[in-house]
Amino acid sequence: MTASRPAWSKRVHEPITSAELAERAATWAPLADDVRELVEATILSQVEPDVVAEVRSHIAAALDLLRKRTDTGSHGVHVNDDGDVWHWGNAATGLRNAIAPPMSEVSNADGRAVYEATLGAAYEGPPGCVHGGWIALAIDHASGRTAHIHAGGTTFTGTLTVKYLQPTRLGPITTRAWVAATGRNSFTVHSELATTDGVCATGEGIFVLAPWLRSS
Amino acid sequence: MTASRPAWSKRVHEPITSAELAERAATWAPLADDVRELVEATILSQVEPDVVAEVRSHIAAALDLLRKRTDTGSHGVHVNDDGDVWHWGNAATGLRNAIAPPMSEVSNADGRAVYEATLGAAYEGPPGCVHGGWIALAIDHASGRTAHIHAGGTTFTGTLTVKYLQPTRLGPITTRAWVAATGRNSFTVHSELATTDGVCATGEGIFVLAPWLRSS
Repeated sequence: MTASRPAWSKRVHEPITSAELAERAATWAPLADDVRELVEATILSQVEPDVVAEVRSHIAAALDLLRKRTDTGSHGVHVNDDGDVWHWGNAATGLRNAIAPPMSEVSNADGRAVYEATLGAAYEGPPGCVHGGWIALAIDHASGRTAHIHAGGTTFTGTLTVKYLQPTRLGPITTRAWVAATGRNSFTVHSELATTDGVCATGEGIFVLAPWLRSS
Repeated sequence: MTASRPAWSKRVHEPITSAELAERAATWAPLADDVRELVEATILSQVEPDVVAEVRSHIAAALDLLRKRTDTGSHGVHVNDDGDVWHWGNAATGLRNAIAPPMSEVSNADGRAVYEATLGAAYEGPPGCVHGGWIALAIDHASGRTAHIHAGGTTFTGTLTVKYLQPTRLGPITTRAWVAATGRNSFTVHSELATTDGVCATGEGIFVLAPWLRSS
């Protein structure tokens, strides 16, 4: 017997074509890029309080406009009849999520994936360096997606272990993940995160197939 | 012999009083809160492309204002002569960083720390649930700060292991961390992340004292 798929994992069907989806992406991606710049400028600016007040009035106007018609809760995962799957709110890769650097999937096939991202001021932990938690996040995301593609469906992270080898300077990072071992319903994925300084951290994750996909 | 402190770990001295620092916080914290709302609205809004264009013109104006006078690189860690230490760009807790939820430190003493945060649409991984990487980030931050306070100075994460017990629904989370074992220059910190559903993940981190703080 196969477990049933829980409500929270459901996908939202949208009656749009791939072409309409591309148009929608062209509307929202530039806005998210603007907001990414605003996040960084909010950290680094040195203007006076009266200028900050003026900035806030612009943001209030932007918020009023965006909230004229809005969803609630979260974005979730969407699909259409053309076979597209999109998750524009994803915290690591989301096209509409300004918290996502975003990590971009350079390749993901044959149990190996490569992701690239540029982590600026907003990703800081130790001065000038990437926050250790964001290193874990990049490794988790690359490893989880590798397991998902390899398994052909939803997997859950069981355990993730990250070893920190040296500080990771802010700037471009590359995260690689590959399936190291496959069990009946579980996968071990190894990974590494590198900058121009070399490998800064390595990861080992154990991922398990969603219960509703397991063979009985 | 003690290793020297590397350039990247340096703190920026600011000739301001605690009162002036509080005024500065009162200027920037509300702006970062506005930007957090904008991040979420950018994910959830359903307005038409012409409205998005209008939103972008407000954000462009805000960026122009903030960039009239700006720092470059990253915020770093600042100190003053009153003994205040602030890291407003920190990816987990930064008062000026809209990527930080922010996690707020409810307590941190005697080798035990408690952090609270509310993770909305921008922190999504599986539909309606917190991204596994953000769970690792919250555990890493709470554990690292606990080690830091316990050690009385900078520590580095050696290894962090996170076990995922159940999906973490978007919403309020509490992260607890405590020192489980202390060596000469290293500390083992255990942790857990909980929602109203109970404990969703546990962590074990090994933290090592910065080389320049170690006894020879």
